[in-house]
Amino acid sequence: MNKLLVFMTDFGLDDGAIAAMEGVAFGVSYDLNIRHLTHNIPPFNIFDASYRLHQAIDYWPEGTTFVCVIDPGVGSERKSIVAKTRTNQYIVTPDNGTLTHIAKHIGISEVREIEEKTNRLVDSETSYTFYGRDVYAYTGARIAAGVISFEEVGPLMNVDDLVKLELYGCQKIDNGIMGYVDILDVRYGSLWTSITYEDFKDCGFKIGDDILVEIFCQDKKVFSQRINYGKSFADVEINEPIIYMNSVYDMALAINQGDFSKVYGIGTGKNWMVTFTK
Amino acid sequence: MNKLLVFMTDFGLDDGAIAAMEGVAFGVSYDLNIRHLTHNIPPFNIFDASYRLHQAIDYWPEGTTFVCVIDPGVGSERKSIVAKTRTNQYIVTPDNGTLTHIAKHIGISEVREIEEKTNRLVDSETSYTFYGRDVYAYTGARIAAGVISFEEVGPLMNVDDLVKLELYGCQKIDNGIMGYVDILDVRYGSLWTSITYEDFKDCGFKIGDDILVEIFCQDKKVFSQRINYGKSFADVEINEPIIYMNSVYDMALAINQGDFSKVYGIGTGKNWMVTFTK
Amino acid sequence: MNKLLVFMTDFGLDDGAIAAMEGVAFGVSYDLNIRHLTHNIPPFNIFDASYRLHQAIDYWPEGTTFVCVIDPGVGSERKSIVAKTRTNQYIVTPDNGTLTHIAKHIGISEVREIEEKTNRLVDSETSYTFYGRDVYAYTGARIAAGVISFEEVGPLMNVDDLVKLELYGCQKIDNGIMGYVDILDVRYGSLWTSITYEDFKDCGFKIGDDILVEIFCQDKKVFSQRINYGKSFADVEINEPIIYMNSVYDMALAINQGDFSKVYGIGTGKNWMVTFTK
Repeated sequence: MNKLLVFMTDFGLDDGAIAAMEGVAFGVSYDLNIRHLTHNIPPFNIFDASYRLHQAIDYWPEGTTFVCVIDPGVGSERKSIVAKTRTNQYIVTPDNGTLTHIAKHIGISEVREIEEKTNRLVDSETSYTFYGRDVYAYTGARIAAGVISFEEVGPLMNVDDLVKLELYGCQKIDNGIMGYVDILDVRYGSLWTSITYEDFKDCGFKIGDDILVEIFCQDKKVFSQRINYGKSFADVEINEPIIYMNSVYDMALAINQGDFSKVYGIGTGKNWMVTFTK
Repeated sequence: MNKLLVFMTDFGLDDGAIAAMEGVAFGVSYDLNIRHLTHNIPPFNIFDASYRLHQAIDYWPEGTTFVCVIDPGVGSERKSIVAKTRTNQYIVTPDNGTLTHIAKHIGISEVREIEEKTNRLVDSETSYTFYGRDVYAYTGARIAAGVISFEEVGPLMNVDDLVKLELYGCQKIDNGIMGYVDILDVRYGSLWTSITYEDFKDCGFKIGDDILVEIFCQDKKVFSQRINYGKSFADVEINEPIIYMNSVYDMALAINQGDFSKVYGIGTGKNWMVTFTK
Repeated sequence: MNKLLVFMTDFGLDDGAIAAMEGVAFGVSYDLNIRHLTHNIPPFNIFDASYRLHQAIDYWPEGTTFVCVIDPGVGSERKSIVAKTRTNQYIVTPDNGTLTHIAKHIGISEVREIEEKTNRLVDSETSYTFYGRDVYAYTGARIAAGVISFEEVGPLMNVDDLVKLELYGCQKIDNGIMGYVDILDVRYGSLWTSITYEDFKDCGFKIGDDILVEIFCQDKKVFSQRINYGKSFADVEINEPIIYMNSVYDMALAINQGDFSKVYGIGTGKNWMVTFTK
């Protein structure tokens, strides 16, 4: 283990919750290097959590431990688990779909269910609503610090039994390709679609092409415009739209120095379909 | 000292203020492990600051130093102090009430007034509005790094002379208990009341009970409903309200995956009274 | 180098972008102490970025490396550079004006253009929109960790060729001084002007004076009031306005525990002129 412990939650940054988790972890070991992926996952949004984890995890070294607590079912029968990825990273999380993107793009090699009798902050047994502090941060810290081995987490469970969310994917259509709006680049309002660069390229689209972009909300067409496919925002004028490959190598739509989502009122999820055609 | 230095302010995260404080601290010692409790305390809200400090501090190891700067009286005659808790943690703060919850729940063993002649960033004497950087971060860093001892902070003051805020507490009433809305679990809009789990339990309430919850705004009843007392949110359906014990072992009200405060327009403070009755 | 690596961006804290940058940096060296100036620079606002960097940098030790990515021209022909300040700090940034305040107040001693062939995250060549991760974080990490020397960044460029923004400055006028609203103390809504304390003092203003403050929006007077010049907010009553010297030693306007910008509808930039007269 490399002592790196990375927290991701939907707790926000306004109260003492994250600090309580950090305190618990430093109580395990002063040697931990605690980092934060984001704590602004929209409340209860497991899809976004899975996506953001995927967006960042590839760039972290082997042996890093992640603690991901987006846990609408806290206190229910949902399992608490630690997954080991094919690339030797560890993720401590409720088993609720957080690992969906990673399972697909990286692969999970082993999963263990957390045995709470041995892996719970001492004297926290009466607390039912803050597993992030009492179980996940504590267990993540003990793994990252090498206090317990992966085997000591608890019994193995079948990797195929992991809870998974539906991924939208993309499909070839006449003269092009269709997919969905996975998520926003929130800060700038760009649409990140489920259409991969590989599949897009296979349609024969080339940098510089003006491509017909159509967006449908629950099957109703809400946007239709030819947009230039460029390398980066600066390939078009300020306030002009652009098709580009985003930082996770999927196709995206932006307005140069503008906010595509706000300007055109486009949302995310399976209700929002996008087509690119010649 | 364990080198952990934890900052809490109402400065927000939008400018260079926190970074200036960090820079000053690393100028004292590269060995410090600087952490952040929150910087989003509502501006000038000393009650919330006191509460958030209390919410997190218990989980941090002995020998941790906290720097808490919610300082509406900056530049006035309010004292600058360092308090030592019964559990051997240190808090650097203006003497304005920030220590209220900690004094009650943990206990303060000694307080010293900061002697500014010796405990101020060199050449910062003409700056009157950023004690967080020039005095508190600097002094906190020097304590946490072991550059000065607690005794070198300045003269002892009487612990009983600390400025304290009013705490609302709770009281038994016919068939139940009453208290106030201390604060929100901001991210989810849950109401955290001043009614402790111990006092609540003493009324005879049990998990599974449907309890009459009434909320009053300045003595006017604004909410009245029987709500289930559960262990955790998942004990009720999505969008159903629930009474539960929160992570600081007080009684709280939430809507499962909803926002109680927004849905019912409930605020915080002594104007917002809550009763639980059979 | 002191291993301190400080990130500043306009990426916000809602997704995995900052974590991807951190992961890349820790992939270079586990010994880095990665810190964050702010990630909430308003999108594409290079002036604010330059100002915030200036607000914080003075307080950091020699040998600190800053990575500043406010990069509206990402993917264009704008240069990627590393600047060395007169005080031996390093700044990795696109050459777009981010260094304006530092060049004026601290001085840049040398600038090198980043040779991307040798200073780019391996296998990131097809990514055109995330230089923050692929070039700037990676290069900053390698400098801060001592993996490459400043000389290995790439060829020297002429310091005078750096892109600079216009700074508004201040000027003596009859009976006083005029300047502009540079920026807000966002959290509190105070106006930070381009009028330096030195120039203000030279007009003969003294603590306690009631000074005529006039604010013009595009030459139209929108505010005119005598305001007390005090040391700190507590010198006036709550909700009273005050003139004071801010933490970067410029003159500022606040309402004690209020929000000057919101109450009077005042914005920032060269359209907003302020005069102080007797």
